[in-house]
Amino acid sequence: MAEEAAQEQRSPTAPRPVRCIVKLGGAAITNKGELESINEESLRSACAQLRQAMSESEGDGAPEKVLGMDWSKRHGDPADPAVDAEWIAGMAGLGLDTNFIVVHGAGSFGHFQASRSGVHKGGLHSTLVKAGFVATRISVTSLNQEIVRALAREGIPSVGMSPFACGWSTSLRKLASANASQIIQSLHAGFVPVLHGDAVLDELLDCTILSGDVIIRHLAQLLSPKYVVFLTDVHGVYDRPPTDPNAVLLKEIEVDGKGSWSVVKPALLQGNNKGVEISVAAHDTTGGMETKILEAAAIARLGIDVYITKAGTEHSLRALKGDVSSDSEDWLGTIIRSSK
Amino acid sequence: MAEEAAQEQRSPTAPRPVRCIVKLGGAAITNKGELESINEESLRSACAQLRQAMSESEGDGAPEKVLGMDWSKRHGDPADPAVDAEWIAGMAGLGLDTNFIVVHGAGSFGHFQASRSGVHKGGLHSTLVKAGFVATRISVTSLNQEIVRALAREGIPSVGMSPFACGWSTSLRKLASANASQIIQSLHAGFVPVLHGDAVLDELLDCTILSGDVIIRHLAQLLSPKYVVFLTDVHGVYDRPPTDPNAVLLKEIEVDGKGSWSVVKPALLQGNNKGVEISVAAHDTTGGMETKILEAAAIARLGIDVYITKAGTEHSLRALKGDVSSDSEDWLGTIIRSSK
Repeated sequence: MAEEAAQEQRSPTAPRPVRCIVKLGGAAITNKGELESINEESLRSACAQLRQAMSESEGDGAPEKVLGMDWSKRHGDPADPAVDAEWIAGMAGLGLDTNFIVVHGAGSFGHFQASRSGVHKGGLHSTLVKAGFVATRISVTSLNQEIVRALAREGIPSVGMSPFACGWSTSLRKLASANASQIIQSLHAGFVPVLHGDAVLDELLDCTILSGDVIIRHLAQLLSPKYVVFLTDVHGVYDRPPTDPNAVLLKEIEVDGKGSWSVVKPALLQGNNKGVEISVAAHDTTGGMETKILEAAAIARLGIDVYITKAGTEHSLRALKGDVSSDSEDWLGTIIRSSK
Repeated sequence: MAEEAAQEQRSPTAPRPVRCIVKLGGAAITNKGELESINEESLRSACAQLRQAMSESEGDGAPEKVLGMDWSKRHGDPADPAVDAEWIAGMAGLGLDTNFIVVHGAGSFGHFQASRSGVHKGGLHSTLVKAGFVATRISVTSLNQEIVRALAREGIPSVGMSPFACGWSTSLRKLASANASQIIQSLHAGFVPVLHGDAVLDELLDCTILSGDVIIRHLAQLLSPKYVVFLTDVHGVYDRPPTDPNAVLLKEIEVDGKGSWSVVKPALLQGNNKGVEISVAAHDTTGGMETKILEAAAIARLGIDVYITKAGTEHSLRALKGDVSSDSEDWLGTIIRSSK
């Protein structure tokens, strides 16, 4: 249903093709062990790298003055923000290719509220689920607000867009309605939409949680970006939990037309799929990870390369620039691509 | 155009009629003199009164335990929120008639960013306007987040919905696209949508500011609420700035089929319209106020009573309950109604 909607929406309104959809993984930008705690340094570094990747000038290495777009007070700082309107008005342009979409996970935001109430299971007649829906949205939208602000401080013209407010909904947890026309309009106007995993209405269950990974797959189907980047807290996809000292990084995974995947590099694991216990984030149990890989595989199947790598490294900067090839031995991360 | 859209959308999806659309005026809930400062006491009191107005039981005066729905950390409070899931799950229902919509103004949020950049004038090729658009949205959405949280703390199942994210847009500053289906779905699911004045895309100007008052008029056309309440920082509409010691409160204004309005009470001003310098908020210059009255008059013309009164008073509680008649001499506020 969502795929049909994607087909319908693609042709009439789509402007120039989207360059990149970026997932800021919850594990990378929040401190998972601590309720509603942002990993400020990691978030700042991810935003700075995004700006570098968008930059149209190669630059001489000298840091240019950034046009900060967060003109709001910061918590705990009584000073009013300083805005040099004259200098800003005199700029010829942003000098950025802003044709990016950012989607972020929840990390330590939202999970507590969602799991405490069982909002993913649905049933709004339950007062606990109804309250949990409200509480979950408050938590994930406050993270969204902080990420939009962090991007804006780096001079990226970011606009927050909650899937729930956009009218996205599911049917038995599968995406049923996902109108992206406002996202397309925003891109066309030169803004960077910032979406997130959200609590949404479900036709049959009343409500559920729509994950950031599902949002990315849908947007990739709809907008055919050149590449998709998943930033997480480990170097990529491993054959077992990355905390295991024997874990091997899977450098390249191929997906065939039927959606089955197999490891291409490293050679010693070639042809392996079911045998390896796939794992991405250091904090997650391996169980949920295969679902994550499946979303990435569904994107790769469309002929769109997916790069999974560690946020805040030289590898993530290269991934965001699209400067990754399977021949580059010095790039640490996982490439998931179509075998076609 | 928006009116046609309203007609089209009304019939198929509308559930039970909306009871009330409430405007939380920027002057009432923020400290206008101080950048991005919430009037916490006034906001808390408005939310508590809204809850009382929604309450289905008259009660014996004893305060009932409120099912708080903000389970997020508060700034400056390191403690994790306490959630009594067992108690919540055991509740039979909320005991609230939640068929309300809340729209709030910007007050000391957004105005600084918008006026500094001229975002209301449009022209996104200008770096200043583009940055101002981002900065304005950050400011107004952070106020929205705080209002959603304040409502949730009072046990009101509130969900933030930004007009920009909902895909609302204008053409030459007039509402051009304003799909309310997600608002209707949210009401139907028992949630209270919380909208706000926002920076939006404009078909001809690139962008502009969509005011909360215009949003309310459109929603009133679309959803035919029983009554509309504007909460502000003075008792209602005056014949001159309320700071003037000779200012007279206009207790009743009638609007005819053509949209012209005239004062009915007090009798000494009867028939007067152009002669009086209409004024609502204590901080505003009178110039902009006639526009505000015109929006209220447009709602009254639909046969929907509009009550304008001071937040946090016994009069605002009565207005929110819809317990106002033109005979009640002890109610302080302005009633705007159709002469039909």
